[in-house]
Amino acid sequence: MRATTIHGPFDIRVTDVPDAALHGPTDAVVRVTHACVCGSDLWAYRGVAARQEGQRIGHEFVGVVDAVGADVVTVRPGDTVIAPFVWSDGVCEFCRAGLHTSCPHGGFWGTPGSDGGQGEAVRVPFADGTLVKVPAGTDPALTPALLSLSDVMSTGHHAVVSALAGPGPGPHGWVAVVGDGAVGLCAVLAARRLGARNIIALGRHVERTLIASKFGATHIVPERGEDAVAAVRELTGGLGAHHVIEAVGTEESMRTAIAATRDGGTVGYVGVPHGGSAGVTISDMFNRNVALRGGVAPARAYIGELLTDVLAGTLDPSAVFDLTVPLSGTPDGYAAMHSRRALKVLIEM
Amino acid sequence: MRATTIHGPFDIRVTDVPDAALHGPTDAVVRVTHACVCGSDLWAYRGVAARQEGQRIGHEFVGVVDAVGADVVTVRPGDTVIAPFVWSDGVCEFCRAGLHTSCPHGGFWGTPGSDGGQGEAVRVPFADGTLVKVPAGTDPALTPALLSLSDVMSTGHHAVVSALAGPGPGPHGWVAVVGDGAVGLCAVLAARRLGARNIIALGRHVERTLIASKFGATHIVPERGEDAVAAVRELTGGLGAHHVIEAVGTEESMRTAIAATRDGGTVGYVGVPHGGSAGVTISDMFNRNVALRGGVAPARAYIGELLTDVLAGTLDPSAVFDLTVPLSGTPDGYAAMHSRRALKVLIEM
Repeated sequence: MRATTIHGPFDIRVTDVPDAALHGPTDAVVRVTHACVCGSDLWAYRGVAARQEGQRIGHEFVGVVDAVGADVVTVRPGDTVIAPFVWSDGVCEFCRAGLHTSCPHGGFWGTPGSDGGQGEAVRVPFADGTLVKVPAGTDPALTPALLSLSDVMSTGHHAVVSALAGPGPGPHGWVAVVGDGAVGLCAVLAARRLGARNIIALGRHVERTLIASKFGATHIVPERGEDAVAAVRELTGGLGAHHVIEAVGTEESMRTAIAATRDGGTVGYVGVPHGGSAGVTISDMFNRNVALRGGVAPARAYIGELLTDVLAGTLDPSAVFDLTVPLSGTPDGYAAMHSRRALKVLIEM
Repeated sequence: MRATTIHGPFDIRVTDVPDAALHGPTDAVVRVTHACVCGSDLWAYRGVAARQEGQRIGHEFVGVVDAVGADVVTVRPGDTVIAPFVWSDGVCEFCRAGLHTSCPHGGFWGTPGSDGGQGEAVRVPFADGTLVKVPAGTDPALTPALLSLSDVMSTGHHAVVSALAGPGPGPHGWVAVVGDGAVGLCAVLAARRLGARNIIALGRHVERTLIASKFGATHIVPERGEDAVAAVRELTGGLGAHHVIEAVGTEESMRTAIAATRDGGTVGYVGVPHGGSAGVTISDMFNRNVALRGGVAPARAYIGELLTDVLAGTLDPSAVFDLTVPLSGTPDGYAAMHSRRALKVLIEM
C-alpha cells in the first residue's frame, strides 16, 4: 500500500509501505478515505520536531472499516468511522474520565511501530475504545466536517472548554482567540457553539479572518504582540478578555494570550509548545490570578457531541479546508501549508 | 509611634515613625493589637526581595478602629477589625467579582507611602472596602484565629479553591499539599473544611506534620523532590493527586507540585514566585493536561465566610502561631522564622 513518510526536513514522500493488518483481537483495519495535514505536522516538516528517517506521518483520518479482530464489537466491516488523533483503550480510569489522551495504552498515529493517518490504510489498536462510527447513509458532503472532528475541531473545542473551566462569566464574558490557523478558527466556532457572544479573533490574514467572522468572531484584531494586547484591552473596557484561547504554540503567542487575559481569567491553551519556556512567565500570572488550563485535546471524548451537531447541520467546520490533494499530492500539500498558501489541506484517497 | 522597619538584609528594627493619621474621608486609623510575620516577609529579610532602607514592613494585622474619615460607614471607632493583606476600594469591577487583589486603587501594606502592619497603628485607605468588622464581645481567645484570616488562612483557602476549580472530582479526590509552612498547613485545614477526605501533606519537620495531621492530613510524605512525587503516586494508585497545592514558591516545589498532579488535574499555587522560571515547564503540563490556577489570594473576599466558622468554633488555624513576641521582639521573631525555630510569629502590641 501507499502512505506518506517523512525523510528529513522538507522531505515528505508517498512511498510503498507494508499493508495495514490486524495484529490482535482488539484491532481494526481502516481503509482511509480522507486524511489531512495538521499544523503540528509542520513542526516535523520543518525539522523542529525530530522524526526517524522514513517514519509514517499524519494523525487525522476518516475511513471505512476493512477488517476487525475477534473482540471488536462496536464497529463492523463497511462502517464509516472517525479516528481521533490518538488511540485509547476506552476502559481505563482516564478514558472513563474523558481524558483519553492520558490512556496508558494509548498512542499517537505515526509514532514508530504504528501506522500514520496519511496513507491508504491504518491498523487501529483498541478499535472499540478509539473509533467513532458514523451513521450509515450520512451525506458524503459532510465528510470534511467529519474529518475535522479527528483533531482540529475537537482541539478548538478543548481550548474553549479549558478556557471556560473554573471561575469567570463563561460564555457571557469576552472570549479572545490568539491564532488564525485552523485550530484558532475552530476555537472561534466552538466558542460560538458554546454560547459566547463576544468573540475577538486575533489574525492578520484577511482570507482567514473572513472565515473567523463566518465562524462567529464579532471582532477582529489584526495587530500582533503588545499592540494586539492593547487592542484587546481597548475592546474590553481596558480589562482584557475573561477567557483567552492560545492556539499557536509559540512563546510570543503564549505571552500575548496571558497578557490579553483579564485578571482572574483563564488561558485555554492547545498550541503544541515548541522550545524554550513556551512563553509562560509565572510573574505575569501570579499577581493577576491568571490561570492556565489545556493541553493535548482528548478528541475521543468530544467527537460524539460534535458529531451530533455536524449531522444535525448546526456545526460545519469544513471551511478550514481550502486545498484538496490526492494522496500523491501530499508533499505539495505540506509545501502549501508551510508557505501559508493553504490554511489546511484535505487528502482524498 | 513605634513600628517595624527594614534597613537591609537581616536588619529588622523597631523604630519611631510618624503617627498614623487620616488623609482622606474614606480612611480609617486602626490601632494594631496583633500582627504577625509572614513567610513572604522573609524574602525581604533575606535580601531576595528588594526594599528601600527604612521601609515599613508587615501586612497582617487585627486591631481596634481609632478614627474614621467622614465617608466611612461600615466601621466606627472602638470596633475590632481584621485587615486583609491588601487594601481595596470595594466598589470596582474586580472587588465586586471577589478579586480584591486586582483593585486598581488597591495596595499592599508597607509599600512606600503606606503603613506596614507590624506597628502600633495603620492608616487604612478605603476602610469600607478593606476592613472586616469582628462582632463586639468576641472571645479574645479567638484573636490568633482572627489574625490568621488576614493572610495565611485566606491564602491557604485560596490555594484549595483554586486547585478545586474546574474539572476533577473535587473534595472526593486526592488533595496533596506541597509545603509544610504556615500557608501549607492552612491549606490542609482549608481542604478538610471544604470536604476533602484524602489529604496528603508533604513535609519533613515533625512538629509541623503533627499540626498537619491535627488539621486534617490523612497521609504524610516526608520525602522531597522526585522521591516525594513517587510517594504521592504510590498513595494514589500510581496516578498522582487530582488537586495539588503549591504553598512554597520555589522552583523545586512547583516542579514537585506539577509532577505530583494526576493527568487532567490542577495545581492551585499561592507560593510567591521568586526567581527564574518558577519551575513551570509547559512540556510537563501539555501532554498531561495539568492546569495551573491561583496567585495572590483575595483575602477580603474570603474573610467573611471564614470568620463565620471561626466564631462558630468550627475553624481554628491558631496552631500555626508557635511563638509570641512583643513589638520590640519583632527582630527576634524574624530571626526565629528564618532559622526555622518558629513556624509563624505572633506580635502582641
